[in-house]
Amino acid sequence: MMMIKVVLNFKTYAEATGKAALELSRICEEAKDQYDVEMVVVPQTADIHLISENVSIPVYAQHVDGVGFGGYTGSITAASIKAAGARGALINHSERRLKLAEIEASLSACRAEGLSTIVCTNNIATTGAAAALKPDYVAVEPPELIGSGIPVSKADPEVISGSVEAVKKIEPEVGVLCGAGISRGEDLKAALELGSVGVLLASGIIKAEDQKKALEELLSGIRG
Amino acid sequence: MMMIKVVLNFKTYAEATGKAALELSRICEEAKDQYDVEMVVVPQTADIHLISENVSIPVYAQHVDGVGFGGYTGSITAASIKAAGARGALINHSERRLKLAEIEASLSACRAEGLSTIVCTNNIATTGAAAALKPDYVAVEPPELIGSGIPVSKADPEVISGSVEAVKKIEPEVGVLCGAGISRGEDLKAALELGSVGVLLASGIIKAEDQKKALEELLSGIRG
Amino acid sequence: MMMIKVVLNFKTYAEATGKAALELSRICEEAKDQYDVEMVVVPQTADIHLISENVSIPVYAQHVDGVGFGGYTGSITAASIKAAGARGALINHSERRLKLAEIEASLSACRAEGLSTIVCTNNIATTGAAAALKPDYVAVEPPELIGSGIPVSKADPEVISGSVEAVKKIEPEVGVLCGAGISRGEDLKAALELGSVGVLLASGIIKAEDQKKALEELLSGIRG
Amino acid sequence: MMMIKVVLNFKTYAEATGKAALELSRICEEAKDQYDVEMVVVPQTADIHLISENVSIPVYAQHVDGVGFGGYTGSITAASIKAAGARGALINHSERRLKLAEIEASLSACRAEGLSTIVCTNNIATTGAAAALKPDYVAVEPPELIGSGIPVSKADPEVISGSVEAVKKIEPEVGVLCGAGISRGEDLKAALELGSVGVLLASGIIKAEDQKKALEELLSGIRG
Repeated sequence: MMMIKVVLNFKTYAEATGKAALELSRICEEAKDQYDVEMVVVPQTADIHLISENVSIPVYAQHVDGVGFGGYTGSITAASIKAAGARGALINHSERRLKLAEIEASLSACRAEGLSTIVCTNNIATTGAAAALKPDYVAVEPPELIGSGIPVSKADPEVISGSVEAVKKIEPEVGVLCGAGISRGEDLKAALELGSVGVLLASGIIKAEDQKKALEELLSGIRG
Repeated sequence: MMMIKVVLNFKTYAEATGKAALELSRICEEAKDQYDVEMVVVPQTADIHLISENVSIPVYAQHVDGVGFGGYTGSITAASIKAAGARGALINHSERRLKLAEIEASLSACRAEGLSTIVCTNNIATTGAAAALKPDYVAVEPPELIGSGIPVSKADPEVISGSVEAVKKIEPEVGVLCGAGISRGEDLKAALELGSVGVLLASGIIKAEDQKKALEELLSGIRG
Repeated sequence: MMMIKVVLNFKTYAEATGKAALELSRICEEAKDQYDVEMVVVPQTADIHLISENVSIPVYAQHVDGVGFGGYTGSITAASIKAAGARGALINHSERRLKLAEIEASLSACRAEGLSTIVCTNNIATTGAAAALKPDYVAVEPPELIGSGIPVSKADPEVISGSVEAVKKIEPEVGVLCGAGISRGEDLKAALELGSVGVLLASGIIKAEDQKKALEELLSGIRG
Repeated sequence: MMMIKVVLNFKTYAEATGKAALELSRICEEAKDQYDVEMVVVPQTADIHLISENVSIPVYAQHVDGVGFGGYTGSITAASIKAAGARGALINHSERRLKLAEIEASLSACRAEGLSTIVCTNNIATTGAAAALKPDYVAVEPPELIGSGIPVSKADPEVISGSVEAVKKIEPEVGVLCGAGISRGEDLKAALELGSVGVLLASGIIKAEDQKKALEELLSGIRG
């Protein structure tokens, strides 16, 4: 059985920037040892080096541009995040949407550096399109539910099951992650039952009064 | 007398990524001790932490988004680069142009974090507009000369003197840097004579067969 | 005395698209004859030709790209809107923000075709920057008030008076228009008293139950 | 047998703007009567109304934004181009690339207005992704060949046959058009033999000394 993938996007939250980002990463590392999951942290680009030097769990970038070496001032290249210790990247997050050709170029750049890839999408149609580009994962997140606290697995379960189906038809090797509004154990459980192989988390954990407790409560859903 | 500012933009060149970026920063640090200049290195975002931990000269980011803490996945925030050790940033480089409102928001974000700011512009008119936003510096670079090896101080000296004049009229506290095609000591000297207070360098040094030698040859122009 | 400029942005409202756009333009034409104002209509690009063929008041485009003749598929060029009958354009509206260099290029393209220009801005700082580029007008609109029904002249009068002052300092030939939330005669009157030379309107008129009545009520404020 | 689709993109060429756009459309209309093809003209948005009032062949827009009625100043909506007489649209042309979610939204908007859709792509991978979104057509154009005069059917035939294959696997109802560098009858013939159902043309015809002759020479390839 494939291990469940739990991806925590730090966004640009104060509670997950600089030293706070390192502390949160350590909480995730501990949780990973307690629960039988693949735990991934996704800090801001400037925090990748500090975190990957200090924790053993995989660190992903929040964004990678589809450009290589050269005159691309301000871009985030696959080579630079790899050098800083990243092992993968989110691509096309709803807060950092990319052009279709850029998604493809970013995927190629990540593959060339041996980085894992998660392409974020907003509905069933774009999930199918993203799957055709053969990332390792697609993470479907209806934008209106992001940061809402309303789990997609409850508000719109068809978008998950429909995405799983679309991916199966177009590129069955691609795993489907489920995002948007996931914060409790039961949400995670429901997401897995709908056919996803993991979840993409953010505010539900990061903005929690007690991040550690919130993460453990969520992960306990796996055993439920 | 104000110290001459020499800013080296690493772009995403292979010769200035990861470990190579650190080595190049050390070369800059040594050069700074030899010549009476303010030397600034501008690596990729993922390299800021490694470099600022290991060299004493100022490290700037290549780009800062005009957003703060929150749901801004993939953005490069002023707080994150500050936490990683940066002391300033380029904004609106010709390879990473921003909307007018974004430039203003990015400047505000940098000021709130105590970061120095250099807004890049492409001609006299945009230099005047940028100066009105009160960055610490504007760096004027005619895009067609970037990476050309043809120094702007020779190809289009009026763009520098005209920029100096426009800034003097609108916001005289702002310093003018001169970019595009600068690689030799005589280019630097000419740029200073036209009224700029420093230079923005890139490929002329980074792609040089011997980076150290190229930088020293350039800096020797100050004494000329 | 300069004539007061009243600019009605049709946005992409159903009530101002296609035939409805033509009808609304005719209402504006009639209102112009009744009140001593310069009345401008700003329909969608595809509606410019139909409207300019049928009304005598100036028709402006909502956006112009800073490109000329050539390989720029999908761009809106100054030459094309001129050929369709437009006499001016909004540039950098808050719903269609442009990069600084693009604003400058768009202004140049409009000037070359003899088109009037209104650059939209979001605060005092960007108003000053836009004025430095020498458009015919800047229209300052705090984004949070657009479509709110809360007139900027009441919610944030300092942004208008401060913009008027900034423009006077940097480029006094540029006229300041006042936008965001303007819908009644008293709002218009207040805007003029704060130093603006006209207003940029939209939803307050277009979404009104009776567009003609709403426009007349607003214009009656001039005589107040 | 399906009729061959010949689509002429006017871009923003001077030779295809305003009155010249109407003349060129009339040339296309005549050619259509002579040859057994479906001939489509794709003028700038501001020229759609003039042309669709005066010719009977289908007029497409060069770009449609994925937004509807509302506060979207400067956008090109499906409803507005429909009202102006358009019957379809290019989406995601290499000179006007869109984000993945925007392509999907633009397709939905066009479908809701009964407009035909051609999504442009740059390689086999993005062609597959675009096909998953179910446009009427995809037009594959390697960017480096656009405007080059070197026909894709000769320089890179695998990109066409590979695209045809990818589409067949993912969404066989979608037709594949072939673009980039097509200007002669033999190029068109080769494109059809590789499995495409038509071509997307531009500079090869528009910049020709004699547009009419160039178009006829090209269309004669069908009978070859």
